[in-house]
Amino acid sequence: MQASYPTYFESFDYQAMLRDYPLGEALFQQFRGMTTADLQALQNQRFMQVVQRAWQIPFYQRIWGQAGVTPADIQSLADISKLPLISKSDIMDSVERFPPLGDFHGMDSIPAEQRPPMVFHTTSGTTGTPQPLVFGPKGREVQGLLVGRSYRFMGLKPAATIQSCYGHGMINGGHYIREAVTHYTNATFLSAGTGVETRSAQQVQLMKTFGVNVLVGFVDYIKRLSDVAREEGIEPGKDIKIDMIIGHLGMESRDSIAKAWGNPELFDWYGVGDTGCIAAEGPDHDGMHVWEDAHYLELLDPDTDQPIAEGGCGNMVVTCLYKDDLYPIIRFNTHDITELVPGPNQMGLPFRRIRGFMGRSDNMVKLRGINIYPQGIGPMLEERTEFLGEFICKAVRDASGRDDMIVLAEVSTAAPQRAALLDDYRALLKRKIGIEVLVELVGEGELTPLTQVDVRQKPIRLLDQRFS
Amino acid sequence: MQASYPTYFESFDYQAMLRDYPLGEALFQQFRGMTTADLQALQNQRFMQVVQRAWQIPFYQRIWGQAGVTPADIQSLADISKLPLISKSDIMDSVERFPPLGDFHGMDSIPAEQRPPMVFHTTSGTTGTPQPLVFGPKGREVQGLLVGRSYRFMGLKPAATIQSCYGHGMINGGHYIREAVTHYTNATFLSAGTGVETRSAQQVQLMKTFGVNVLVGFVDYIKRLSDVAREEGIEPGKDIKIDMIIGHLGMESRDSIAKAWGNPELFDWYGVGDTGCIAAEGPDHDGMHVWEDAHYLELLDPDTDQPIAEGGCGNMVVTCLYKDDLYPIIRFNTHDITELVPGPNQMGLPFRRIRGFMGRSDNMVKLRGINIYPQGIGPMLEERTEFLGEFICKAVRDASGRDDMIVLAEVSTAAPQRAALLDDYRALLKRKIGIEVLVELVGEGELTPLTQVDVRQKPIRLLDQRFS
Repeated sequence: MQASYPTYFESFDYQAMLRDYPLGEALFQQFRGMTTADLQALQNQRFMQVVQRAWQIPFYQRIWGQAGVTPADIQSLADISKLPLISKSDIMDSVERFPPLGDFHGMDSIPAEQRPPMVFHTTSGTTGTPQPLVFGPKGREVQGLLVGRSYRFMGLKPAATIQSCYGHGMINGGHYIREAVTHYTNATFLSAGTGVETRSAQQVQLMKTFGVNVLVGFVDYIKRLSDVAREEGIEPGKDIKIDMIIGHLGMESRDSIAKAWGNPELFDWYGVGDTGCIAAEGPDHDGMHVWEDAHYLELLDPDTDQPIAEGGCGNMVVTCLYKDDLYPIIRFNTHDITELVPGPNQMGLPFRRIRGFMGRSDNMVKLRGINIYPQGIGPMLEERTEFLGEFICKAVRDASGRDDMIVLAEVSTAAPQRAALLDDYRALLKRKIGIEVLVELVGEGELTPLTQVDVRQKPIRLLDQRFS
Repeated sequence: MQASYPTYFESFDYQAMLRDYPLGEALFQQFRGMTTADLQALQNQRFMQVVQRAWQIPFYQRIWGQAGVTPADIQSLADISKLPLISKSDIMDSVERFPPLGDFHGMDSIPAEQRPPMVFHTTSGTTGTPQPLVFGPKGREVQGLLVGRSYRFMGLKPAATIQSCYGHGMINGGHYIREAVTHYTNATFLSAGTGVETRSAQQVQLMKTFGVNVLVGFVDYIKRLSDVAREEGIEPGKDIKIDMIIGHLGMESRDSIAKAWGNPELFDWYGVGDTGCIAAEGPDHDGMHVWEDAHYLELLDPDTDQPIAEGGCGNMVVTCLYKDDLYPIIRFNTHDITELVPGPNQMGLPFRRIRGFMGRSDNMVKLRGINIYPQGIGPMLEERTEFLGEFICKAVRDASGRDDMIVLAEVSTAAPQRAALLDDYRALLKRKIGIEVLVELVGEGELTPLTQVDVRQKPIRLLDQRFS
């Protein structure tokens, strides 16, 4: 007896999805000039749908039940703060209790013979059990659509040629971006992947051969590829003409990456594997527009889990408003820190904007009552012309229990002249952070063994030596 | 101004595709008991559609024009032999003339602003320019559908868990199989990829952790993974229970791979990157059913390019009947050799069946008027119980210009006793090939440096020393 399950694209209403989550010109037609009240009504309706789905799933029944929440408690988005936060550790706990896939996805209620297709990946998890990532067809396509929406919003030209350095294999990244570009743009997409999948020398040859004009991936590797190009006798900006680089820029130096590739336009975006694309920088380059039709974003104080005061930094806590098939995500604490960008939305959209990834709250160092996010230190130094963009913070504790932070930064200044700069650096950081930190200046490349910027997709920016 | 191009799934009629190319139970509903005449009428109608599309494309205009063919010459499938064969070398020639994408795809006629999405890959091409592979959305999905059809035809259980060892990056294989399984089955799909993407030890841990019961990929690597499992203390067949292995078995030894994984059911399938899945072994295990609703398959004599006589071996020359969007494929010579399987189709389908990949015609050795395909030699030896499945053929030429073939085979027999077996091996091969060849017997693993079975996806089976 054959199974009767639907194919991937039969399992949800594709046309309705395109209407609900528009991209290209339709994004502006639907959202330009929309009032906040109308946006909130849309969010509310979608929120109630995902909450209803979540109540069917053992994971939420358990966690919400333990918090004493009942279905009657959640009547609208205004009640969201009654729901407990979840995070990666809850997902891993679910997997441990109910191996191998956990009880958070909600596919057990459908018999195997009728179950629609799904997309499965794991996080990289080089040690221990990898975290399973599970996507229903609709949830998966909306995530891809939001990446396509972002790229086209940034100004991706029709029939562009994109090279992606996101890896494949079990991890989600490369597959996700490939699906997004292939389904929701008409770019020629080169899924080169990491340097392990396609050697770096071959990556730059591909760019030259196929006229690649957009690079996407982790910016440290993209930057390194410009050096590889020069080693291969290929001049970035001349032999390879890059118009856009789209990556997770966060607080990284934009100047050095732009210079390396002949000054293309740079675009930041933000998302995590579970939630997909949450926000993207637009052609206005004024923060990242949060796709608030698809995500309800809260910024919560890392200490109290309460909404931050105006102008403050907080944890991004995400509710995916579109994920009503598998693995609903409600109040997912990314532990990634950002702040809102003030001022009107110059693109005429009703969406709030965020600054971008400013650090991890689990990497936060509390010094004399001030929260310091190491990733944010580099950008503070950028007004110094001799600062080369590379840095790392050391948190240390002396015998008396007093904590301090030492900021190590690479500068172009010759060693004998560096001591004369220290006062300026300390004063600059005191002005920006609000308290005194220590500073050491070193030469180009000296921090690489600590930051591992040459081998890691996300360089290390904190060495916490307080407890060693 | 925003572009107005459609998304991937808006660019063709998905429901019509599912009706035209059924899978699951619908395959039998549509095709069981269909007459040959009805199948040919269907093929004819689809053939005329792809020919019409091809006439719009510079590549076919050029090659068909040079052969003196005009549109009026091709009135039906009966006229197909008037069209010249094409092969990989024509595609590479097209790329050289019109870099970087050639003139064979047919997308230049649509302005960039209206062009639908497409899928782009390259062949592995470690040296020189890689061959671009271009797929329109419909062509791409039909290819995936035919893989999904094949797996479900074989007996893939609903909600199975499949691990794929096909590689990703720029090459097509891994992406193609991932799309196929994700869109057209409801299996949990682990895109582990090659051992470079996911270390072999991690691959077997994944199988154990996630309860993988189906393995797909190149069988030599799948076989090797059973050794890796044992090294990791994981017993194949017990700790990992594999029901099916789906790979390109060709003439490889089925016994050794089945034994290595605790005797799962084995399934062969055939296709090349350009054409997608052409044929698949069914639960009847009586050759591979050619998906003749999607492909028109000719078997042509490698010397004359004329249809082979009944019972003979020939080059598979493929016309993709479904590829009417980008890169139509008409009379594509794969240079892969097979033969038809005689007797009625036990599954009640109107399709012919082929034996499977029996060798490459460009690896063929002509000896005293007989065509010998080295890949076919191994299977001829399988009736010998001491034969271990590994072999290689050496073609040599003496000073007088006389050619000979030496078959080297690994046996379990101890060295002193091997000489006594030589007469039997020579007699066996003479009976099967029709002429005398020389034989050398060696111990287990001794041929690995020559066959490179430990590192190559397709082991080497011919060393041609005639011209050295």
